[in-house]
Amino acid sequence: MKENQDLKSLREADREIQLLTHAIALLEWDQETYMPDDALTERAEQIALLKGLLHDRVSSPQVGELLACLGATDDNPGGTETSNVSDTALVRELVRIHSRAVRLPKNFVIKLARQIGLSQSAWAKARDASDFSLFAPFLEDLLALIRSKADYLGYTEHPYDALLDEYEPWMLTGKTRTILSSLRDPLAEVLDRIRGSERDIDASFLIRDFAEEKQRRFSHLLLKAMGFDFRRGRLDESAHPFATTLGAQDIRLTTRYHRNLLSSALFGSIHEAGHGLYESGFADELKGSILANGTSLGIHESQSRMWENLIGRSRPFWLFFYPELQRVFPEALSDVRLDAFFHGINKVEASHIRIEADEVTYNLHIILRFNIELKLIEREIEVKDLPEAWRQESEESLGITPEDDAEGVLQDIHWSFGSFGYFPTYALGNLYAAQFFSKMKADIGTLDEELAKGNLDVPLDWLRRNIHCHGSIYPADELCRMVTGHDLDPAFFISYLNEKFRKIYEF
Amino acid sequence: MKENQDLKSLREADREIQLLTHAIALLEWDQETYMPDDALTERAEQIALLKGLLHDRVSSPQVGELLACLGATDDNPGGTETSNVSDTALVRELVRIHSRAVRLPKNFVIKLARQIGLSQSAWAKARDASDFSLFAPFLEDLLALIRSKADYLGYTEHPYDALLDEYEPWMLTGKTRTILSSLRDPLAEVLDRIRGSERDIDASFLIRDFAEEKQRRFSHLLLKAMGFDFRRGRLDESAHPFATTLGAQDIRLTTRYHRNLLSSALFGSIHEAGHGLYESGFADELKGSILANGTSLGIHESQSRMWENLIGRSRPFWLFFYPELQRVFPEALSDVRLDAFFHGINKVEASHIRIEADEVTYNLHIILRFNIELKLIEREIEVKDLPEAWRQESEESLGITPEDDAEGVLQDIHWSFGSFGYFPTYALGNLYAAQFFSKMKADIGTLDEELAKGNLDVPLDWLRRNIHCHGSIYPADELCRMVTGHDLDPAFFISYLNEKFRKIYEF
Repeated sequence: MKENQDLKSLREADREIQLLTHAIALLEWDQETYMPDDALTERAEQIALLKGLLHDRVSSPQVGELLACLGATDDNPGGTETSNVSDTALVRELVRIHSRAVRLPKNFVIKLARQIGLSQSAWAKARDASDFSLFAPFLEDLLALIRSKADYLGYTEHPYDALLDEYEPWMLTGKTRTILSSLRDPLAEVLDRIRGSERDIDASFLIRDFAEEKQRRFSHLLLKAMGFDFRRGRLDESAHPFATTLGAQDIRLTTRYHRNLLSSALFGSIHEAGHGLYESGFADELKGSILANGTSLGIHESQSRMWENLIGRSRPFWLFFYPELQRVFPEALSDVRLDAFFHGINKVEASHIRIEADEVTYNLHIILRFNIELKLIEREIEVKDLPEAWRQESEESLGITPEDDAEGVLQDIHWSFGSFGYFPTYALGNLYAAQFFSKMKADIGTLDEELAKGNLDVPLDWLRRNIHCHGSIYPADELCRMVTGHDLDPAFFISYLNEKFRKIYEF
Repeated sequence: MKENQDLKSLREADREIQLLTHAIALLEWDQETYMPDDALTERAEQIALLKGLLHDRVSSPQVGELLACLGATDDNPGGTETSNVSDTALVRELVRIHSRAVRLPKNFVIKLARQIGLSQSAWAKARDASDFSLFAPFLEDLLALIRSKADYLGYTEHPYDALLDEYEPWMLTGKTRTILSSLRDPLAEVLDRIRGSERDIDASFLIRDFAEEKQRRFSHLLLKAMGFDFRRGRLDESAHPFATTLGAQDIRLTTRYHRNLLSSALFGSIHEAGHGLYESGFADELKGSILANGTSLGIHESQSRMWENLIGRSRPFWLFFYPELQRVFPEALSDVRLDAFFHGINKVEASHIRIEADEVTYNLHIILRFNIELKLIEREIEVKDLPEAWRQESEESLGITPEDDAEGVLQDIHWSFGSFGYFPTYALGNLYAAQFFSKMKADIGTLDEELAKGNLDVPLDWLRRNIHCHGSIYPADELCRMVTGHDLDPAFFISYLNEKFRKIYEF
């Protein structure tokens, strides 16, 4: 059986690719959590070296030959020689990363990794000083490399396609633009209704004094209740919260505790745990392979945003957990009743910082970034124009203008990582989340009652069975159809927003 | 200039070898500090893969050819084409690791790395259960690999030479045996004098209640006073304290806080910081190269043991730091006067646990292990005989018999790492430390007065200039002659012990 031997060899090559990927993930995790400040330059060298080695393996002629023997091509990525859906998916995913890798020269990969390392520390310093000029020269060099990357990778319609595809496989710029544009009017309508509401929501209790150690304890309590397994994962702290995977049994989350802002760690921790639960829920037979990955970042964000917002900012959820939160923070919260808390954590108001934004305005932050990234890639603007472009887009999308660079163009870490094409996945995540959640509610029937009893294993079990277990066997659009019976449709999200905020704002 | 081009290429190869070595060190550091329990098996796979890649580079024909072009051979490791001492040393060190690596098949290296990964968790479980039988089957497989390793590497006199050489380059088994044997009688004499002394030292105050958080704070205070730079390093916790290097600007130390045993973290932290100061003190021009390594583990231990014992258990040191320690632990220490404290931390008494042993009996623990390792490598005993062999050797060397495996044969982590040949470096470290310290005192003159003022920069500066800056330019024996004017001579250590303990025990 020649095919099986090829498939076996391909699996072995894949296994080493995944192990190396996870080793790099540790170097990056450590950089954001425990690494001493002065080690940054050398860490960038270490990561660049390992990314070069990873590139060697992914682009290796041996992998290319195995894929060819299995009949896999860019046009028929699943190949002709596999007999079941997961083998076909394995071949398809490896063709995907192999054909991207062979288009990028190794020297370019190393150069890009090094520039990313340098840009990250420049970004952190610039943000602390709220001075874009400290980051600009690094971003200019990085953007030049990113534009080259799009050229190396190639594209049919738009250079941004080549970048987007890394995070949201098979998604195109045109379709993304259509989806995001379709949100503008309905979001404006919801916002108008909210602004016209007579209900005045007070969220000032969120900025009282919340001891960090107690926040930490409560985050751990919530994550355990969500089913996050601390024998197979951790929750640490970093300036910018994230989730990463160092192995099937090693899922690392981070959050950040602000003494005077309860919501940041609270919803940040739940959000990252949503990612973590996805990463720990792949079927056993996929573990260790490339299929043990979220099928797209949009689907990944659907998991984190669903836990954070559709579950974590719901009234039934807090019906159970709010008394516990009050027990942990009696001084700060004993005078805040459940409904006041529920309304406060759902207050809608245009604000500057994306990751603190409410569910209605969040996607406007994404539209802002998507527009700017397109202009950068289309060379309509250059790095020096960014602060002004940000102000204009912010005025247009959110109706507010940032006071300084820190709350404007410097707020996100992504560009310093060279991650252009990443932001749209957040908006797609919101849409997928609403669509999945609608189906989950229909399937479970008593979801609200279960949440009100603190039974978070009920939604988790549904997610495990319908989404997590599949890993990246099915591409995002196929998974969406399979789970919900429909293509991705923003109407689910708009309908969710209207239903939720109609009650809160009584419109 | 052909030679220079070869040297330049060799430097580049070396740089990648060091970067990869440091990446592996992070995987190992994380495993001991923050990694979730269930991740162990996969971590072993990750480390094995990277060790395989490192082996490829170290043993690569390209490195071999460059070394040959530079005229370097096993017999003339410095080569014929270098014009200064550090280039010659660079070539010599690379010849050393290259010729060791080419003798080991890559499959063997990976197999050994995997077996080490498995053995570590087996050891930890066996130690927790104090049941050697849980560790024995893993150690048997590991020992078989270690014996093969010695055979692959080759040796002239004794297979143990091949193992010892990894940790203490160019040291031979015969010479080690002579040095260790020469300690037996003088140590017995010191012990007899102490046992004959009428002074009864009370060390019971060390097992009072010492809150871990306060111990942590005091360890950090001491390390800062020693000159350890926390912008370029960290102190974390692990079951077995260690120091490791993840880069020139990234030195990681660990310690462990026992609520009811102050001395463990206190001297453990100082000890590891001694290693850390060595690793952070290499001359700038060596940084990033193979010469930015301790020249041998014996010399490395001379640094940690000097800080721990010759400085850290000295009366002048505590003249300055004891009032601070009393301020941190007023309940536990306010009734303990300085001299009682000084005597307590220097109490001599045969005990089971090596890393808690006093300065007089410590080397007896090493002799015990050296004898057992020789017997294992000579196949005079097998793994199954170890608990009994340990009891016999303990009775013979220390005059006491361990109650169980946890305080006997299972106490050290080293064998689970496959580190046979490592233990003698601790004894050599004690001897080097005393010899260096004698010279330091002669050079500085007012060392005791400086210590009593808390001026730890004075000994550090001497160590920086005389030892640290050289990295591994000079082999251990050459460095010793250069610094002290003598070959390694145990008389310095014996004389130090007699002088110190004569005062304490009034003999």
